[in-house]
Amino acid sequence: MRNERQPPEGVQRETTRMEIFSDGVFAIAITLLVLELIQFLHPRNGEGLIDSYLHHWEPFLAFLIGFLTILVCWINHHHVFTYINRIDSRLPWVNGFVLLMITFTPLPTAILAEFLKTEGKYAVAIYGMNYFLISVASYWLCAYSYRKFLIDEDKREIFRYIKRTYGYSIFYTFLAFLICFVSIPAAILLYLLLFYAFAFPKEFAGLLLKLETKRRKRYPIRKS
Amino acid sequence: MRNERQPPEGVQRETTRMEIFSDGVFAIAITLLVLELIQFLHPRNGEGLIDSYLHHWEPFLAFLIGFLTILVCWINHHHVFTYINRIDSRLPWVNGFVLLMITFTPLPTAILAEFLKTEGKYAVAIYGMNYFLISVASYWLCAYSYRKFLIDEDKREIFRYIKRTYGYSIFYTFLAFLICFVSIPAAILLYLLLFYAFAFPKEFAGLLLKLETKRRKRYPIRKS
Amino acid sequence: MRNERQPPEGVQRETTRMEIFSDGVFAIAITLLVLELIQFLHPRNGEGLIDSYLHHWEPFLAFLIGFLTILVCWINHHHVFTYINRIDSRLPWVNGFVLLMITFTPLPTAILAEFLKTEGKYAVAIYGMNYFLISVASYWLCAYSYRKFLIDEDKREIFRYIKRTYGYSIFYTFLAFLICFVSIPAAILLYLLLFYAFAFPKEFAGLLLKLETKRRKRYPIRKS
Amino acid sequence: MRNERQPPEGVQRETTRMEIFSDGVFAIAITLLVLELIQFLHPRNGEGLIDSYLHHWEPFLAFLIGFLTILVCWINHHHVFTYINRIDSRLPWVNGFVLLMITFTPLPTAILAEFLKTEGKYAVAIYGMNYFLISVASYWLCAYSYRKFLIDEDKREIFRYIKRTYGYSIFYTFLAFLICFVSIPAAILLYLLLFYAFAFPKEFAGLLLKLETKRRKRYPIRKS
Repeated sequence: MRNERQPPEGVQRETTRMEIFSDGVFAIAITLLVLELIQFLHPRNGEGLIDSYLHHWEPFLAFLIGFLTILVCWINHHHVFTYINRIDSRLPWVNGFVLLMITFTPLPTAILAEFLKTEGKYAVAIYGMNYFLISVASYWLCAYSYRKFLIDEDKREIFRYIKRTYGYSIFYTFLAFLICFVSIPAAILLYLLLFYAFAFPKEFAGLLLKLETKRRKRYPIRKS
Repeated sequence: MRNERQPPEGVQRETTRMEIFSDGVFAIAITLLVLELIQFLHPRNGEGLIDSYLHHWEPFLAFLIGFLTILVCWINHHHVFTYINRIDSRLPWVNGFVLLMITFTPLPTAILAEFLKTEGKYAVAIYGMNYFLISVASYWLCAYSYRKFLIDEDKREIFRYIKRTYGYSIFYTFLAFLICFVSIPAAILLYLLLFYAFAFPKEFAGLLLKLETKRRKRYPIRKS
Repeated sequence: MRNERQPPEGVQRETTRMEIFSDGVFAIAITLLVLELIQFLHPRNGEGLIDSYLHHWEPFLAFLIGFLTILVCWINHHHVFTYINRIDSRLPWVNGFVLLMITFTPLPTAILAEFLKTEGKYAVAIYGMNYFLISVASYWLCAYSYRKFLIDEDKREIFRYIKRTYGYSIFYTFLAFLICFVSIPAAILLYLLLFYAFAFPKEFAGLLLKLETKRRKRYPIRKS
Repeated sequence: MRNERQPPEGVQRETTRMEIFSDGVFAIAITLLVLELIQFLHPRNGEGLIDSYLHHWEPFLAFLIGFLTILVCWINHHHVFTYINRIDSRLPWVNGFVLLMITFTPLPTAILAEFLKTEGKYAVAIYGMNYFLISVASYWLCAYSYRKFLIDEDKREIFRYIKRTYGYSIFYTFLAFLICFVSIPAAILLYLLLFYAFAFPKEFAGLLLKLETKRRKRYPIRKS
């Protein structure tokens, strides 16, 4: 990662500091989710311990969904930043949009926990809108870094495919958002598929690259 | 950043540790803001989900304002620390004053969320006083580092302009604090302008330097 | 730690970032425990300060248990990661399972604080189940790293014994979980013994290695 | 800091990771203090904004005291760790005792906020006992590192004086704890003096060293 074309030490330190700040935000957002579970515990002192939790499994499901969402986002943020090796003065703002959506995520999670039973449709829709905006932010982070040449020269080709996966995810999450008004289980299935694809962002982008290479061999006239 | 005049490795490690601690404080303060939004959710179980949020947009505005405030502060803190390359025993206290105001920021934000509708004038004034103190703390951090030669020798010239921008911001935020008693929208406009200027601290200081250089060319007798 | 067989700088940075994220999660989970103690303070404004705390020592015991649990886990996580020197795309998920259990830990702790007096059996059982799952996650982390050769070649031998200690802890914590339905004090004694053994993971694995070496000298036919 | 006598790179990384974890705990504990201030805001919706805060200045005083306490502790922890350059398997536990007292600190702070007016004596006593235990933990950290040769050989002399300052602080904080039962203002004055002395731990230890050197010149027979 450290070669002649790289920026000097000082710039590297700046990138590192932005990653530490971002890691802090991700780590706190993911750990705050449990507060909702604990808060839930208190007003039910009247009921017994086992009863109160047996009748209310939704907060646990919401906790798991929120945890997975933020973990997937961290893995992808981490993956994108292994390619970014210098920063300009606008990148903290683009990255700030990603962080805004991450710090916001505990709210849709808490809404899921509270309203999944009574107003499931709206609760899932709010979660879906949040995830759609995370996709937009992630794509913007990639597109901005790509356009401003903030990544290594020899990794631009593969990074273009990484960027494209986030481009697809924008349409995908918008679709899932719409579908949740028709059928909640179908929307949840779509989200699970999405989690699976973005659980391994490197492999996912590699797959796209391979498919593209295969296609090019067959139709050798390059398009874009 | 690493040249002959620089202090030895150990001192560098100390600077890094102060940055990590500061990043932690910024990251937590910015993520705690969402707790206010979630807390807001609970006492309104009686109302429906959509109703309760449609009628109460203030917490969301406050969340966004708080997030922007802390993000702008982090970007500027980060920017100033790229110039500081050694610490003395007083710097943690000067930096501690900045951190005090940052950890305090969630309170004015929560007050905005709760009282913007009913007592907007006071709520904005408290927020404004907080921002004024952040400006004082930031200027102090710069002025102290400059006076005690904690920055690279060859960057003192540009750092003097960075320091000056924070000096201006003290008067500016005090003005905005006073104006909010006359007109809240005017005060908010002033804060938006301030956010815009300090969103890109490097460019802002560079602009000052350029204006100064131009002025000097016309009137070549140097003043200060 | 840095020799010819090691992966290049970039990969090292990735490992470091995963450690920073994990450290953040551990640090937040361990600090959130105090919120339960504070929350406990509020509804008892009627009672005097000293009275209210004299009659309620359980939250303090729960705070101490939760603190010790997460600290032991951090020490072991830290110890395991001194051997891991490269990551693949699945390791964040295996590590994510450990972090899921750590972020969850404040809930069993809060349950202990609230229900130790009235429904102690269930409260300890929930805590025990949580600890059992932490053991499973820790073993999985070790076994995965070992199988995928993510550790230094010359440390595989000792790492095999570290892995084995976590394998034993799975059975041990499951036993303690079962025993708590029979006798809570016996279960607590078992947990204290476990804390003691895993307080010094390096020494514990070293002890196993020494016993094994002694055994082999007596019965020189190697088994596995 | 990096010389021939130093341990290899891997061990350095371990020290760094313990510092990052500790920094995280300090940063979170110091930022959680504001939650008490916000929580205080909610049940008083009936009163006006300005009224409710004018009549209740104690939470603000408590916030400031808590902030100063944790900041002083961080500065001293940071200072001690600039001398520690290797860790053994017991140091995380000694350090863990310091962290236990730090994560606990928001509780005495919240008690001060709530009970300073009505039961000031007990509230200050609980805060004082907490500070006494922090002193014990800090001394233990120093004494342990000194005894186990975890610090640079050429810095042992000055480190002995640093250790001694924490030894004095144990008696000092115990005295302040006792005095608070007689007179709260006198106890507060003692704490302010303590904050002042430990605000600059390097200078404080240097002063002790200078006094000792002067004394030795007069009475040249070395005692201990």
